[in-house]
Amino acid sequence: MKKLVSFGELLLRLSTPDYLRFSQASSFDAVYGGSEANVLISAANFGKPCEFVSVLPDTDLGRRAARELQINQVGVSNIQFTGKKLGLYFLEKGAINRGSKVIYDREHSAFANMDPESLDWDEIFKDCDWFHWSGITPAVSENAAKACKIAVDKAHERGITISGDLNFRGNLWQYEVDRKQVMSDLVNKTQVLLAGHYACKQFFGLEAEIGSGKDLSSKLKDQFPELKTVAITNREEINASHNKWSAQLFSEGEAYESVQYDIYPVVDRVGTGDSFMGALIYGIQQFDLQKALDFAVAASCLKHSISGDVNRVTLEEVLKLVDGDRTGRINR
Amino acid sequence: MKKLVSFGELLLRLSTPDYLRFSQASSFDAVYGGSEANVLISAANFGKPCEFVSVLPDTDLGRRAARELQINQVGVSNIQFTGKKLGLYFLEKGAINRGSKVIYDREHSAFANMDPESLDWDEIFKDCDWFHWSGITPAVSENAAKACKIAVDKAHERGITISGDLNFRGNLWQYEVDRKQVMSDLVNKTQVLLAGHYACKQFFGLEAEIGSGKDLSSKLKDQFPELKTVAITNREEINASHNKWSAQLFSEGEAYESVQYDIYPVVDRVGTGDSFMGALIYGIQQFDLQKALDFAVAASCLKHSISGDVNRVTLEEVLKLVDGDRTGRINR
Amino acid sequence: MKKLVSFGELLLRLSTPDYLRFSQASSFDAVYGGSEANVLISAANFGKPCEFVSVLPDTDLGRRAARELQINQVGVSNIQFTGKKLGLYFLEKGAINRGSKVIYDREHSAFANMDPESLDWDEIFKDCDWFHWSGITPAVSENAAKACKIAVDKAHERGITISGDLNFRGNLWQYEVDRKQVMSDLVNKTQVLLAGHYACKQFFGLEAEIGSGKDLSSKLKDQFPELKTVAITNREEINASHNKWSAQLFSEGEAYESVQYDIYPVVDRVGTGDSFMGALIYGIQQFDLQKALDFAVAASCLKHSISGDVNRVTLEEVLKLVDGDRTGRINR
Amino acid sequence: MKKLVSFGELLLRLSTPDYLRFSQASSFDAVYGGSEANVLISAANFGKPCEFVSVLPDTDLGRRAARELQINQVGVSNIQFTGKKLGLYFLEKGAINRGSKVIYDREHSAFANMDPESLDWDEIFKDCDWFHWSGITPAVSENAAKACKIAVDKAHERGITISGDLNFRGNLWQYEVDRKQVMSDLVNKTQVLLAGHYACKQFFGLEAEIGSGKDLSSKLKDQFPELKTVAITNREEINASHNKWSAQLFSEGEAYESVQYDIYPVVDRVGTGDSFMGALIYGIQQFDLQKALDFAVAASCLKHSISGDVNRVTLEEVLKLVDGDRTGRINR
Amino acid sequence: MKKLVSFGELLLRLSTPDYLRFSQASSFDAVYGGSEANVLISAANFGKPCEFVSVLPDTDLGRRAARELQINQVGVSNIQFTGKKLGLYFLEKGAINRGSKVIYDREHSAFANMDPESLDWDEIFKDCDWFHWSGITPAVSENAAKACKIAVDKAHERGITISGDLNFRGNLWQYEVDRKQVMSDLVNKTQVLLAGHYACKQFFGLEAEIGSGKDLSSKLKDQFPELKTVAITNREEINASHNKWSAQLFSEGEAYESVQYDIYPVVDRVGTGDSFMGALIYGIQQFDLQKALDFAVAASCLKHSISGDVNRVTLEEVLKLVDGDRTGRINR
Amino acid sequence: MKKLVSFGELLLRLSTPDYLRFSQASSFDAVYGGSEANVLISAANFGKPCEFVSVLPDTDLGRRAARELQINQVGVSNIQFTGKKLGLYFLEKGAINRGSKVIYDREHSAFANMDPESLDWDEIFKDCDWFHWSGITPAVSENAAKACKIAVDKAHERGITISGDLNFRGNLWQYEVDRKQVMSDLVNKTQVLLAGHYACKQFFGLEAEIGSGKDLSSKLKDQFPELKTVAITNREEINASHNKWSAQLFSEGEAYESVQYDIYPVVDRVGTGDSFMGALIYGIQQFDLQKALDFAVAASCLKHSISGDVNRVTLEEVLKLVDGDRTGRINR
Ligand SMILES: [Ca+2]
Ligand SMILES: [Ca+2]
Ligand SMILES: [Ca+2]
Ligand SMILES: [Ca+2]
Ligand SMILES: [Ca+2]
Ligand SMILES: [Ca+2]
Ligand SMILES: [Ca+2]
Ligand SMILES: [Ca+2]
Ligand SMILES: [Ca+2]
Ligand SMILES: [Ca+2]
Ligand SMILES: [Ca+2]
Ligand SMILES: [Ca+2]
Ligand code: NI
Ligand code: NI
Ligand code: NI
Ligand code: NI
Ligand code: NI
Ligand code: NI
Ligand code: NI
Ligand code: NI
Ligand code: NI
Ligand code: NI
Ligand code: NI
Ligand code: NI
Ligand code: NI
Ligand code: NI
Ligand code: NI
Ligand code: NI
Ligand code: NI
Ligand code: NI
Repeated sequence: MKKLVSFGELLLRLSTPDYLRFSQASSFDAVYGGSEANVLISAANFGKPCEFVSVLPDTDLGRRAARELQINQVGVSNIQFTGKKLGLYFLEKGAINRGSKVIYDREHSAFANMDPESLDWDEIFKDCDWFHWSGITPAVSENAAKACKIAVDKAHERGITISGDLNFRGNLWQYEVDRKQVMSDLVNKTQVLLAGHYACKQFFGLEAEIGSGKDLSSKLKDQFPELKTVAITNREEINASHNKWSAQLFSEGEAYESVQYDIYPVVDRVGTGDSFMGALIYGIQQFDLQKALDFAVAASCLKHSISGDVNRVTLEEVLKLVDGDRTGRINR
Repeated sequence: MKKLVSFGELLLRLSTPDYLRFSQASSFDAVYGGSEANVLISAANFGKPCEFVSVLPDTDLGRRAARELQINQVGVSNIQFTGKKLGLYFLEKGAINRGSKVIYDREHSAFANMDPESLDWDEIFKDCDWFHWSGITPAVSENAAKACKIAVDKAHERGITISGDLNFRGNLWQYEVDRKQVMSDLVNKTQVLLAGHYACKQFFGLEAEIGSGKDLSSKLKDQFPELKTVAITNREEINASHNKWSAQLFSEGEAYESVQYDIYPVVDRVGTGDSFMGALIYGIQQFDLQKALDFAVAASCLKHSISGDVNRVTLEEVLKLVDGDRTGRINR
Repeated sequence: MKKLVSFGELLLRLSTPDYLRFSQASSFDAVYGGSEANVLISAANFGKPCEFVSVLPDTDLGRRAARELQINQVGVSNIQFTGKKLGLYFLEKGAINRGSKVIYDREHSAFANMDPESLDWDEIFKDCDWFHWSGITPAVSENAAKACKIAVDKAHERGITISGDLNFRGNLWQYEVDRKQVMSDLVNKTQVLLAGHYACKQFFGLEAEIGSGKDLSSKLKDQFPELKTVAITNREEINASHNKWSAQLFSEGEAYESVQYDIYPVVDRVGTGDSFMGALIYGIQQFDLQKALDFAVAASCLKHSISGDVNRVTLEEVLKLVDGDRTGRINR
Repeated sequence: MKKLVSFGELLLRLSTPDYLRFSQASSFDAVYGGSEANVLISAANFGKPCEFVSVLPDTDLGRRAARELQINQVGVSNIQFTGKKLGLYFLEKGAINRGSKVIYDREHSAFANMDPESLDWDEIFKDCDWFHWSGITPAVSENAAKACKIAVDKAHERGITISGDLNFRGNLWQYEVDRKQVMSDLVNKTQVLLAGHYACKQFFGLEAEIGSGKDLSSKLKDQFPELKTVAITNREEINASHNKWSAQLFSEGEAYESVQYDIYPVVDRVGTGDSFMGALIYGIQQFDLQKALDFAVAASCLKHSISGDVNRVTLEEVLKLVDGDRTGRINR
Repeated sequence: MKKLVSFGELLLRLSTPDYLRFSQASSFDAVYGGSEANVLISAANFGKPCEFVSVLPDTDLGRRAARELQINQVGVSNIQFTGKKLGLYFLEKGAINRGSKVIYDREHSAFANMDPESLDWDEIFKDCDWFHWSGITPAVSENAAKACKIAVDKAHERGITISGDLNFRGNLWQYEVDRKQVMSDLVNKTQVLLAGHYACKQFFGLEAEIGSGKDLSSKLKDQFPELKTVAITNREEINASHNKWSAQLFSEGEAYESVQYDIYPVVDRVGTGDSFMGALIYGIQQFDLQKALDFAVAASCLKHSISGDVNRVTLEEVLKLVDGDRTGRINR
Repeated sequence: MKKLVSFGELLLRLSTPDYLRFSQASSFDAVYGGSEANVLISAANFGKPCEFVSVLPDTDLGRRAARELQINQVGVSNIQFTGKKLGLYFLEKGAINRGSKVIYDREHSAFANMDPESLDWDEIFKDCDWFHWSGITPAVSENAAKACKIAVDKAHERGITISGDLNFRGNLWQYEVDRKQVMSDLVNKTQVLLAGHYACKQFFGLEAEIGSGKDLSSKLKDQFPELKTVAITNREEINASHNKWSAQLFSEGEAYESVQYDIYPVVDRVGTGDSFMGALIYGIQQFDLQKALDFAVAASCLKHSISGDVNRVTLEEVLKLVDGDRTGRINR
């Protein structure tokens, strides 16, 4: 298999244990993640060769962050170590009707301050057949946005398949920019997109019929003709502990629907969309589109039971759930 | 804003971690709480100035207990430090069909042994517009009962609004006493009462139609003409992990009903009634009665997701739930 | 009361904390259990005198394992300490649609290597009125199977009531053997059997109507005429966190049905069948059969809320649930 | 071997983890101990049959406390379960130049409130050859003092060897009493006494040459002619983390000296005197007096490395240290 | 007593538990501290009224940080809440010959970005008799340096006693500045200074005889004539776990020497200099200079046994150590 | 740089937390290690490319074990995954005069049962300039011994430098074998040997003057003429918490001595010899022999402060200690 490459920031997540509030915590559980890295790890779980491109600080914590990818079989030889500040975020895990809270502390990080010209994409893209980006990267800083655009342009030139996740984060984008232009430049060269109603409206002013994935997909494809496949995940939030989870795929005139999973009690929902995306990339390359969708929804259903930002499941475990075994029976 | 004052005992709670039984525990999680202090902290969360009056032992643990109130913005300058024993209770948290168990160890505490004449209520009640008592205080000891009566009398003389929570605890009341007389002396001067069918029968022999809050409220008001507002909370206990939660208010001929919240899995239900009461006091002063009720139910719904005896929520968080957002969505 | 005796292996269980996957764990929670010991502890909870017969390694861990029985009021004077390896298993607790995983490490243990002639059953069976075996013991090794057969023969000779739990474990039975013969030798002398469709088919080739406990019970009794009472537990696995639990009893032409309990979130389901069996043995001796069944189902319902392999409940707690109080209300 | 019996209170100890101060702790580590029980467990480690006589509350915590003795091979069939309050104490472990702090909470406990006539000493003393008491028991309450006197009188009548530990605790003795008389009644019938300069002065007004164990021993034997053997432990407290530890024995005109152990960092010094006493009782019965002393000092040296109130060492481990191997080498 | 005021940044410290390296940690212990706040808490322990002036982010973590001061009896009414980033640092605790490591993450914090004109010093300095600053504050940012200068000028105008701690931190000072000028402006109006050879050389190019506190003090007083008292702490670092600790004071021609404390194993040395300074301020106001020095050294000796940045000791505890009791004996 | 290769077993270590005894533990801390892997990780810390050859079970735990090497930059592409049992050992960490205890559970592991012919050494040894073996591998099983001999023979044929560590483990060697022959076959082709008096006597009957490394080295070189360099580590065990640590090197007629480090309190001494060996291999290739020895002793001195079997230090950290900075000062 050829490589899947992505580019983005890796963060230290500091979360309160046992559903404590920020004001109650005397320790924080530490894990490492970030949307683009999460996508890679999700695909690497199934055997896809993956490579992460990033900038991390030249400190013990920066090096520790990179090791998280190595443990999860993702290549790190194109990570730069420079600067001092690691991007991080604090997470207070919610329960019942109390939602989770996030406090970002990632401005001025080594990644945000990166030199957008410093990456050798020709080298990076050797043996690569898929590049993935997310809307978080251009939101981090002007430099990150520039680097992301260069990566997409280079991948496109080489005929590499490109996927993206719109991932609107209102709390980022802390610099002067024409967001629509930045995002359009990326989507214009993208074939597979994970999208949502809210992000499409925020980025492109694009309004579809409420709840209609089909309509949203059509409008996106009208605006971005290179788009071939649009995926939409549907989270029904009964409360912070109880969600229902499903997804749709729209590709070449066909619409695909997944089953819906009833998820409670939620163990950790951070990174579930990313686990969906990584499994979808793998699925599109290995299966037909219906099975790719079913595979991605099952993989991300399982992610809700796993602590941390990244999915840790095997091909066999996901396929067992795709085949309908929801029992959680012990094998002994 | 003027002050809310309450008087009662502050306890150390020692609970088994991770749903362990008493026989399994090799450590206990420690928090501090008590019905009256919990009410104050609930109100202080929203900005109400609060003052707790109590007696704590003159030990490192007694001083630590008082600090819990300071952390939560409740005044402690009228707490006496004398004696040696801190009241405490052991809690085994239940799950599924196994209920929680409590072992009290509060007899002969510094609070129980207090001198009922030792408190300077004229000083305490300066700048105060509301006094709250609970039925736990007179149940602790004869001295505590006497002190509670003095407090209510003094508050009444000064025209301060008085609220009470009947809070029947069968395992306390370990001294010779005419309970009905003691409790009637308190309710006689009370305007706002949190009550329940079982407590009304135990204390006053007062029996209302089963499940009818309206009937119970009428009979209470007949017996205690100064009562203006009666609140009743309704907990439907499907099991220890799954409750439904709502409340009613009866005031000046009007009946108010809240929505019902579906609560699972319960994180910590101790002190939820107290969080309701504190939010109701705040709500009555700030909102109309329907909104005060909705506010108190939402605040106490959130308490079920928070470890410990006391609520830790902001005005904004409660109002968001009052406005109907139960999704527990992450804001990022 | 006379003694209940059982014979089997005691294992160290090493489980990942907080629903972590094996790949995430940096510590393991340690408890001790095993099907036969679990049955004894379940019965000992209610006051039945119990005695465990086993072989444990002559190490600090072997001695620690035996202490677990002493803590739970089970006699250990017939445990041999010899050899070096303690049987153990690793448990990854599942959640939502991710099932639990077990990795056994019990081959070549002190128990598996035991001398089948070394136990003095005449001594052991003094003051004993019930012997219990499980299908796990003959699955461990040829020596264990021989010892189990000797025990059943000796008990039968002395007129002791014999119960068994088929407990099919496909991952054991790692030696050359005619399973059907081994198991038939045991069931032939058994009066009370805990059975299931799958185990009956695997061991005896016996196929009953799908879902019909009555049919299964009839066919078992045809094949094994000494059988008087057949019990069947029914677990509906909605997912790993949510189960429904009930049971049936078939005895002397009568069929008994229990109520069904809705169980979520599951705290620990390992050993629930064993807790059912121990409570059933106690119940059959103390109550009529319908109450014995109700008692066993209620006891094992509670087990789902208790960490570890063994049940820790009192007679009063079980009877309260038998009487229909599922509220999990706090008694204070 | 015949039994060693002791009588006293069993306490729950709640200690702050990781050297935290009381004001910092959000949990407490829980262990069970008490001077007399600690002595028994120390002797039981080496194979001496032991029996503990006490009164514990009729609660889940009272029953859990008794189990601690069972785990450690001490008989519990003469423990009464009645009342509600378990004696307990809070421990803040010191370090460097900050000493440990203890807050007692044992007044009005089930043990303190016991009925001194309720114990059947004739039954208890069957098969017993040694009774041990400590000065903590008469300090707890008048009832406990009476019961202790009865026990000593009964043991003496039967010709059982009696040992005692003066164990002066200034914070107890909270009732009206002639301490000298109470203690003299016990020591008058005692053959083996663990004593110290300070306790002898406090109880008996007996002043010996500073630092001279020999002189102290002589004066004790003058006053209490039945005394045959006096033991004195010497703790040189360099600071809370660093102690030096040795002991002396005076018996029938001979003086015995132990080696001195250098102990740092102290893991847990609570109960080290008790572990000395239990090992001394065992040693006197099994060895000559010099070896008995060496054995007791080595056993209690090891106790400093073990968390909790009770020693957990084997005969082999102590004898290895008696033989001079202080290396702490790994055996593998 | 009048107030002690200080101004500086409050940080969240995230430290690895149990001496783990950064690369090993899966959680971080969280405490709050900062040199100036540590000084205040140290003085507040003894009853000195204290007030902290600072800028914290308007987030749940910013508010939690402020509560740490309230718990420790330090006033917070002059803390501004604005901005988003809390200053923080990561700490890897060393052991034996491996030193501790610190990774700062405090650039661009709410404090660093503060408005230097925004503080109402006339209001703040009411009822104040002492102001303390440290060299860390001007090192944080140009704005912080300006604010610090204003504070010192205002205090000086009002005749308030001023103390400072040079506290050289090479890793800060990340802006263009004439350090000597900035620091001289502060020391010029300071009466009591905690200084060291290295800091004096870095800031003022001032070189004294190696190891001679007296010479250093003279040269400082020559350069800064308003200086009356110079304190120097002496840490002999045998290794990370074993330090020796003493101090000197030079005032009006007199030299004072403290005893030396032998400290091992070090529990937490962060903030020990600050605990010295806070105790010295208290001591100078309450005792003669020799006792003030002894008091400050004893208080900071105890700090080495206490986890976190701040000291938690009582007046009695420090005076006991001043009186020479290093035994760490348990009081019971 | 060319690769360092080693071959051996990787074990799961389960250790009791906080110095608890086996009988007290309710959880075990889990790390992965093994003498040969520890050597590789020690060298990889400094940038040496390393490759581990082994057999691990085909389970989630086997795969997790391999990841430990990846995290630490050691290649794993020649690890086979087959079989079910992971080798493991239980560790009770000692303190003061109580030594650590180890219970091995590694018989019949996937590694012990390996096929000695299954490894492609020609492939493995590409780009390799050093092979390391330890005496533990032939002790595990006959198959492992055969595989180890093949590896040494193949490495020797290719002119690769060979090092060994005698590592005598009396509790292993559980099969019929002529130990002297097996070990001689390995040492005969070895150039660099880590040896000790006891191992030399046990394996080769070789007795040197007590305490004379020089004499031991001479006798080894007489018997094994290919040996060029002999290293000896000296551990002075004052007790389990306090060791002194130094080493010697004998090479081509020269003797080299290191400084001695005073080590207390020991955090984790398991694997310190291995960390010495890995650093020595690196040192011999990079430095002169005296500095290589100093480097290896400093690296392994630091290992005593690090939890787990493997060292985690940087080149800079070790060189700083080599240069004599033992202060453990914080860099900030
Ligand atoms: Ca947790
Ligand atoms: Ca993320
Ligand atoms: Ca917990
Ligand atoms: Ca409460
Ligand atoms: Ca847990
Ligand atoms: Ca089991
Ligand atoms: Ca601990
Ligand atoms: Ca004790
Ligand atoms: Ca810790
Ligand atoms: Ca600090
Ligand atoms: Ca620990
Ligand atoms: Ca090892
Ligand atoms: Ni947890
Ligand atoms: Ni926890
Ligand atoms: Ni925990
Ligand atoms: Ni836990
Ligand atoms: Ni937990
Ligand atoms: Ni935990
Ligand atoms: Ni935990
Ligand atoms: Ni937990
Ligand atoms: Ni936890
Ligand atoms: Ni801990
Ligand atoms: Ni700890
Ligand atoms: Ni800890
Ligand atoms: Ni810990
Ligand atoms: Ni912990
Ligand atoms: Ni710890
Ligand atoms: Ni720990
Ligand atoms: Ni620890
Ligand atoms: Ni711990």
